[in-house]
Amino acid sequence: MYINKISHYIPKTRVPNLYFSQLSGQDEDWIFQRTGIKTRSKAAKDENTNTMAIQASKQLSNIVNFPISEVDLIVGATYSPYDTVGTLAHAVQRSLNITNAKVVSISSACSSFINALEIVEGYFAMNKAKKAIIVASEHNSIYSNPENPKDGHLWGDGAVAVLVTKEKISEKDIHIKDILTFGLAHEGEGNLGVMLHPKFEGINMPHGNDVYLHAIKYMTELPKQLLKKNNMSVEDVDYLVPHQANIRIINKVAKKLKISKDKIFVNIEELGNTGCASSPIALSQNINILKKGDIIMMSVFGGGYSGGAVILEA
Amino acid sequence: MYINKISHYIPKTRVPNLYFSQLSGQDEDWIFQRTGIKTRSKAAKDENTNTMAIQASKQLSNIVNFPISEVDLIVGATYSPYDTVGTLAHAVQRSLNITNAKVVSISSACSSFINALEIVEGYFAMNKAKKAIIVASEHNSIYSNPENPKDGHLWGDGAVAVLVTKEKISEKDIHIKDILTFGLAHEGEGNLGVMLHPKFEGINMPHGNDVYLHAIKYMTELPKQLLKKNNMSVEDVDYLVPHQANIRIINKVAKKLKISKDKIFVNIEELGNTGCASSPIALSQNINILKKGDIIMMSVFGGGYSGGAVILEA
Repeated sequence: MYINKISHYIPKTRVPNLYFSQLSGQDEDWIFQRTGIKTRSKAAKDENTNTMAIQASKQLSNIVNFPISEVDLIVGATYSPYDTVGTLAHAVQRSLNITNAKVVSISSACSSFINALEIVEGYFAMNKAKKAIIVASEHNSIYSNPENPKDGHLWGDGAVAVLVTKEKISEKDIHIKDILTFGLAHEGEGNLGVMLHPKFEGINMPHGNDVYLHAIKYMTELPKQLLKKNNMSVEDVDYLVPHQANIRIINKVAKKLKISKDKIFVNIEELGNTGCASSPIALSQNINILKKGDIIMMSVFGGGYSGGAVILEA
Repeated sequence: MYINKISHYIPKTRVPNLYFSQLSGQDEDWIFQRTGIKTRSKAAKDENTNTMAIQASKQLSNIVNFPISEVDLIVGATYSPYDTVGTLAHAVQRSLNITNAKVVSISSACSSFINALEIVEGYFAMNKAKKAIIVASEHNSIYSNPENPKDGHLWGDGAVAVLVTKEKISEKDIHIKDILTFGLAHEGEGNLGVMLHPKFEGINMPHGNDVYLHAIKYMTELPKQLLKKNNMSVEDVDYLVPHQANIRIINKVAKKLKISKDKIFVNIEELGNTGCASSPIALSQNINILKKGDIIMMSVFGGGYSGGAVILEA
């Protein structure tokens, strides 16, 4: 399976650390030193998970070289939903008038994009789909509390849409070589490490250190495991595209994998943690620097817990 | 693929029509005549989507004849989430200590159970899983407004857990012969027909008549389409298990399909609309009346819109 096209949408507003330090009393420099975040993207008042998903998907449809009506599967990914009935995947189906597609939205927290890729892989294996849109969109700003000094400053908003095909369509298509996911709710604090109760208090991270340690562990181990399965090694990896939760997690993972910093796609300094959209947005932002044959490793970890890794070949 | 075991959990409380007529001014008899609902199940204060999913899954694990740790895939289904990060699927993974599984939760509104079945079918096709738990759980009572005279009285709470295996394990296993799903957001009012904005107003059904008409249309057409594909006809169907949104929809579908009422599994009179859990709960409630060789048709429609059908053989 292949990534044919990718497109992202980031809301214009950037919120600086000063905003949070004024509300929560948390020091501006402390926020940057502890997280690597200087600003985070924030959706406008009339934007939400569905509108951002539509924006990213419309941009995607503009660069795809076949009628978008040929898409036969749409998988939405979000943990910060605007609508759990008319989901982001449904909003995209209607907006692009795709009339013959399977449509579903998923959450496995920040690892959802890779879970969505694996679900698409399954539809391709069954021959029930051949051309899929995966759209990941997060609207963290409505579910987070800027007055919370522990985690209120972490979150960004944004969306990304990816056209994934079973067959290769163009020479520039990126080969999805292999996909690995794991549910990790049995580990550590598991499904109580990070919570988002949409009806009640929104995002809450009572066990930040446990999340931090497990993120480093699995964002290191899963890529190694997947490389080994494919008779490859870390030396083969040209770029690492990690989940963007915290620059300290990214740096620790890079150090353990012995991948130098110039090989890592990072957007957390400007965007904050844009959830399951963060690593595919980073891929989309850097898509034009990839050269034929480059190996790209995506590695993600989600509160809940869950993890995933993907090997791509440009 | 096969249904090996199925188990459901319904909260004890039943709320009568009188409760809603006192709050919304809607006549008790009108509610019954328009919906077929006399009471609806309501979760206790300390219950939620995740706790009900755990209850149903623990009961399931008690009747499964192999170590539940052999489960390698858990798919949660809900549009009324308690936690979108530590989802119901993650809660079940942790609660049953299933340490080697892929874990994801999905929503395609009231059709989600059949979407979940199709996703499991994909994992089986890839040989990435062989034994899956699908757990559907809905906590409608926290997202609906009992004072709304249009739709406040419709909703029930409950959960169901299903053990689905790639290979046949016992003679009593139910064969899943074929699965069909469609995203239908391009039809009628589409993703604006029914909405659940978890952060804002909860469930809202501004286009009830449009939902009603499309539910009847697709809950009739999709079974016919799937039967035709399998060289079968409606005469082959021993039982219909429809989504339980409204008895008038069920009766219209039955009339159009020419299936007599005694062949239909119905629980809406007692439970109300328990969302994507409703039809698998109805299957679970009637599992012991099935005889070897019986053909069971599940047919569902979800706000959003989406539809699905499944042919089962006992």
